[in-house]
Amino acid sequence: MISVVLLGAGNVATHLYKAFSKAEEVSVAQWYNRTLSSIQSYKNEVDIINDLSKLKVADIYILAVSDDSIAQLSQDLPFENRLIAHTSGSVAMHDLDKKNKISVFYPLQTFSKDADVNFSEVPICIEAYQKENLKVLKDLAKAVGCKAHKIFTDQRQILHLAAVFVNNFTNQLYRIGHEICETKNIEFDILKPLIQETAKKIQDMSPYIAQTGPAKRNDKKTIKRHLKQIENEDHKAIYKLLTASIKKTHNYSLPSNKK
Amino acid sequence: MISVVLLGAGNVATHLYKAFSKAEEVSVAQWYNRTLSSIQSYKNEVDIINDLSKLKVADIYILAVSDDSIAQLSQDLPFENRLIAHTSGSVAMHDLDKKNKISVFYPLQTFSKDADVNFSEVPICIEAYQKENLKVLKDLAKAVGCKAHKIFTDQRQILHLAAVFVNNFTNQLYRIGHEICETKNIEFDILKPLIQETAKKIQDMSPYIAQTGPAKRNDKKTIKRHLKQIENEDHKAIYKLLTASIKKTHNYSLPSNKK
Repeated sequence: MISVVLLGAGNVATHLYKAFSKAEEVSVAQWYNRTLSSIQSYKNEVDIINDLSKLKVADIYILAVSDDSIAQLSQDLPFENRLIAHTSGSVAMHDLDKKNKISVFYPLQTFSKDADVNFSEVPICIEAYQKENLKVLKDLAKAVGCKAHKIFTDQRQILHLAAVFVNNFTNQLYRIGHEICETKNIEFDILKPLIQETAKKIQDMSPYIAQTGPAKRNDKKTIKRHLKQIENEDHKAIYKLLTASIKKTHNYSLPSNKK
Repeated sequence: MISVVLLGAGNVATHLYKAFSKAEEVSVAQWYNRTLSSIQSYKNEVDIINDLSKLKVADIYILAVSDDSIAQLSQDLPFENRLIAHTSGSVAMHDLDKKNKISVFYPLQTFSKDADVNFSEVPICIEAYQKENLKVLKDLAKAVGCKAHKIFTDQRQILHLAAVFVNNFTNQLYRIGHEICETKNIEFDILKPLIQETAKKIQDMSPYIAQTGPAKRNDKKTIKRHLKQIENEDHKAIYKLLTASIKKTHNYSLPSNKK
């Protein structure tokens, strides 16, 4: 059994709490947040606190707070030599106060307040100095059904950057698709099977091979008509830049250099 | 039973052939292509031809050829007053030669040569002048398990534009994520669950609500570090433009105007 104290009340903390409390091999000893009201609704399930001096002993303390608060919170912890982990994709492990055993437990997934996440498919990037601490992180990931990946800070930060492209930026393209449909009273729903298939396709083939469409074909006529149809100047700039990017990927490089 | 003659041998034609030949209510009377070799491997299943003068009588002729070839092929057809349909997202219905009954049968999906497509989830955009012809298109869509949507040319062209954003451009962002991972020897596979979840999330919530990440939070520190980490100038330009787009969507507009 791994005892966990959870700190923070954002999307990541809340999703982790739900996953931990469902896992047989994990017990959530306490849930801390600076303002109690955010976690008040869980008071019948778990010991909730807003006073760091009341923190109990546990196998691991998960600091699931905003990037800017991680360093300060780790300094404010009133104990030493215990295992603490932050959950951020972009904060360096050594930003944590070294009076404790520092580590990282970063779930590479997008967490929204109202969307349930199937944790069994979430890769957890873990980092720690000592083998015994890595083992706790690995066991914790396993207990919630996740695969753990040992990733150093510099690689994790690069993954986080790549994640911004495939998640945040992709979602913004969905938003633009939504806006374009709205202007002509077309249901955005009609695009949803295409969106699913686009994501599904690259499970088994590389994005390079999966590409289709006017930019890949260098179909100047269609591109020209599209640019004429786009009324929003911001959308037009994005269309131009991503079309140029696809053309560069597919026309100006030798296919043999690509996978 | 609907009898179909298929014309063309590209990805759309091939996927349509497979869907039609599986459907109980559809019989593929003939498959035409200018060069026989592309469809040679199907000769034991279907009557393959490369001579328009040999076209049999059928309920509908599907012109699944490249956008630029549609008008010419429709002119070259050696018969009149039969139902013909093109399958393009961007070509106007009236580009088809009016000596025949013209229509559109546009499957809104991404078709790659080597990726199987589940047709039951493909929306088919149909267009025709006469009710009786719309019925044939609707029945044909239904026979392969698809939902038909009556969409006029101008709306279909806008849908095709939106599809470029959510499909081709999204796939290019996957490609960039792949490139970023490769530079640091990180497996792209680790991003795949995130890519799936990003697509899945917007099935039940709008892309506006689903957005997360540094641009949405206006997290200047992370954005600045990301820009420092990006080595490729093209990727940097895309990062800047899409970050600005997300900021504009989420900070400079009233949430009450958004869905």
